[in-house]
Amino acid sequence: MTMVSMTQSPALTAADYEAMAAQLFDDIAAFSADTQGISRPAFSDLETKTLAYLEQFGLSHGLTVTYDAGQNALFSLPCDAEADAFVLVGSHVDTVPQGGNFDGLAGVIAGLMCLVRAQSEGTSFARPVKVLAMRAEESAWFGPCYIASKALLGRLSEAELRTRHKGDNQTLDAHMESIGIDMAPVRDGTPLMDASSVLAYIELHIEQGPLLVQKDLPAAVVSGIRGNFRYKTIRCVGEAGHSGAVPRAFRRDPVLAMADLLTRLDESWLTVVQLGDDLVLTSGMISTDVERHALSRIPDQVDFSLDVRSQNATVLDGMHDLLAQDIRTIERERKVRFELGEKLSTAPALCDPAIVEAMSGAMQQVGLEPFIMPSGGGHDAAVFANAGVPTGMVFVRNRNGSHNPAEAMDVSDFMIASEIIYAYLMDAQG
Amino acid sequence: MTMVSMTQSPALTAADYEAMAAQLFDDIAAFSADTQGISRPAFSDLETKTLAYLEQFGLSHGLTVTYDAGQNALFSLPCDAEADAFVLVGSHVDTVPQGGNFDGLAGVIAGLMCLVRAQSEGTSFARPVKVLAMRAEESAWFGPCYIASKALLGRLSEAELRTRHKGDNQTLDAHMESIGIDMAPVRDGTPLMDASSVLAYIELHIEQGPLLVQKDLPAAVVSGIRGNFRYKTIRCVGEAGHSGAVPRAFRRDPVLAMADLLTRLDESWLTVVQLGDDLVLTSGMISTDVERHALSRIPDQVDFSLDVRSQNATVLDGMHDLLAQDIRTIERERKVRFELGEKLSTAPALCDPAIVEAMSGAMQQVGLEPFIMPSGGGHDAAVFANAGVPTGMVFVRNRNGSHNPAEAMDVSDFMIASEIIYAYLMDAQG
Repeated sequence: MTMVSMTQSPALTAADYEAMAAQLFDDIAAFSADTQGISRPAFSDLETKTLAYLEQFGLSHGLTVTYDAGQNALFSLPCDAEADAFVLVGSHVDTVPQGGNFDGLAGVIAGLMCLVRAQSEGTSFARPVKVLAMRAEESAWFGPCYIASKALLGRLSEAELRTRHKGDNQTLDAHMESIGIDMAPVRDGTPLMDASSVLAYIELHIEQGPLLVQKDLPAAVVSGIRGNFRYKTIRCVGEAGHSGAVPRAFRRDPVLAMADLLTRLDESWLTVVQLGDDLVLTSGMISTDVERHALSRIPDQVDFSLDVRSQNATVLDGMHDLLAQDIRTIERERKVRFELGEKLSTAPALCDPAIVEAMSGAMQQVGLEPFIMPSGGGHDAAVFANAGVPTGMVFVRNRNGSHNPAEAMDVSDFMIASEIIYAYLMDAQG
Repeated sequence: MTMVSMTQSPALTAADYEAMAAQLFDDIAAFSADTQGISRPAFSDLETKTLAYLEQFGLSHGLTVTYDAGQNALFSLPCDAEADAFVLVGSHVDTVPQGGNFDGLAGVIAGLMCLVRAQSEGTSFARPVKVLAMRAEESAWFGPCYIASKALLGRLSEAELRTRHKGDNQTLDAHMESIGIDMAPVRDGTPLMDASSVLAYIELHIEQGPLLVQKDLPAAVVSGIRGNFRYKTIRCVGEAGHSGAVPRAFRRDPVLAMADLLTRLDESWLTVVQLGDDLVLTSGMISTDVERHALSRIPDQVDFSLDVRSQNATVLDGMHDLLAQDIRTIERERKVRFELGEKLSTAPALCDPAIVEAMSGAMQQVGLEPFIMPSGGGHDAAVFANAGVPTGMVFVRNRNGSHNPAEAMDVSDFMIASEIIYAYLMDAQG
């Protein structure tokens, strides 16, 4: 790799930094391994342990480490510790169940590598920099996503606080309180941090799609983040019966109604994409009642999730209208009832044009042709951008997508992407 | 109710028999209640307890009780105990998980009521009669259906014996051995009973569809039984990925592929029915992997069952061809793979025309207009019919279908249907 400026440091070489990053990834993977892949649940002891491990790493490299009111870890150079206004480099340390090690964690370690390098080289950034290692970004545990960043910006809704953990069925509110967060402001929607003190929010993340692998590029600057609407559990309720004995005309089969709905949505998705608009659609969880279902029983209900994303808010609104129309049609035709449950949603977010330009310049500085692409996955960056904080993101090439054990990021690609952020932090004034 | 001949008995009135039957149903329901409805698993201790309870009832009413080589209970009048050739009145005592109390059990108790009445009245049947209380008919526990009757007639396949219990994952073979069945002949396909000794097989069963409720009839004679092909677990395998980050063109989504397949099959089903042919189709169990699935993860696989039934073997073959064609098309279009697993199947079975005629006469004898209808659900009777035994069935009106806790048969309807069988057994010579 070509980390020219790093090799100028007498103390540490580019190879040293790469080895240091690899060690951090490996150590954290080792204590958060599941039977397959990596599981660091939101607001779990394992998440707390991960922050404590990073805290020790930061302290041992001369960084200042504090915890914010959301119990997230905040790192800086000692000279920036008291800064009133700063650039925030953030990401999260939780993972989906049996996911990979890099989704989230890479962004935190990238920030730390920038701080450690500046500290080691005795330099300081163009503007003060703080690195934020957040908790709870993944929706897999409770349903809502971006929980920690929403709490920081006073945007966690009452409905979201009432959602329940998929494992222990306790509320999000209870889980947050249990790790020591003072919940009164969170419940009031009072921000836990002053967003106006954040000059810019920067996040490095692995790409979660296949584009950089296809284009043979180690990294990219992100133009914006898809918004979404999501339903954790849509229940379709019909009527149970013997699989062989109820004629078609008397059936109220929820499974065929669910299949009908998903097929209609899939066809609409194809149309939207063919018309050149941005859309992805997923039903990731689906299940009849395991206690009651049987080969020879028409089930009385089926539960399934729905996740719809687009960079275009109008497309999201249109798909939500279509969902409502399809449901009305199917309910009438098939004599079933759909119960949608809580709608979770995030608006699409654009990255700040000035930051995108500065990041493109930084990309050139490290010897790469600038490449700009949209983000398919949502990130904490979307919450900051929608709160009015100028926001930028860098993607790292990654094989096999994310949210699965086969996530594969080369640490050498990660170092190049980190160097883009380092160059931005050193130079960018606005 | 009009149970004219019963009221002629000086010893017991029709009301006495009805109370006796109600007591049997209630006692057995009481010890096999689940959190919802009734669960009497195939080859379980609860099934054995049910047979033991019926044995005590039989003995206390002067009947002869033995167990056959399949560990099913066999009842008769003492005078018929040694008969070489006999009419067999049979059904099963197991239920689906959280099912109702009447599916299966009603047929056994109907046979017992006929024996008790003949014993009480000091009469004997036109031909010797034995009543068979079988185990394991429901497919919900292992996948295969009609297990006990197939074992009796040497028709349980090796593949079926290898299927595993949904609860403890032990094989059917192991479960059968554990309740004391000598498995050597079962594994060889050697019949455990001499089918040629069975002059006729008669079964009373609750109707599992809504037709008799609609027609306001307490009972019906059955013309034949739908055959089926069934897959307990069809697995569709795709590729996991982040729900927001993988563009449509790169996806291999197994859930949308499953929805596509079910929707195609549903459309074909509608066409078959519109063309006037007989068909029902059900996917009763469906699930993504609960350990790995998440709202924001394209799942790598989904499992679902398929149960297809028709009275017409040609329709079944045609639907199976269509299934294979649809799967090939969807695999190609959506870059997924379907793994069908073991195919379970039962040929359609016609009831014996002479028995249908005699039963219709018996129906007139108890004061009802004869009504003949097909059976949508499969029954042990299908195994006997397909083994060449002349077979007949009587349906009892029942609300809310079967295989669910809301099964609702009036005991007064049951007594009328039992009386049809009693009249048949008293009179029929062939």
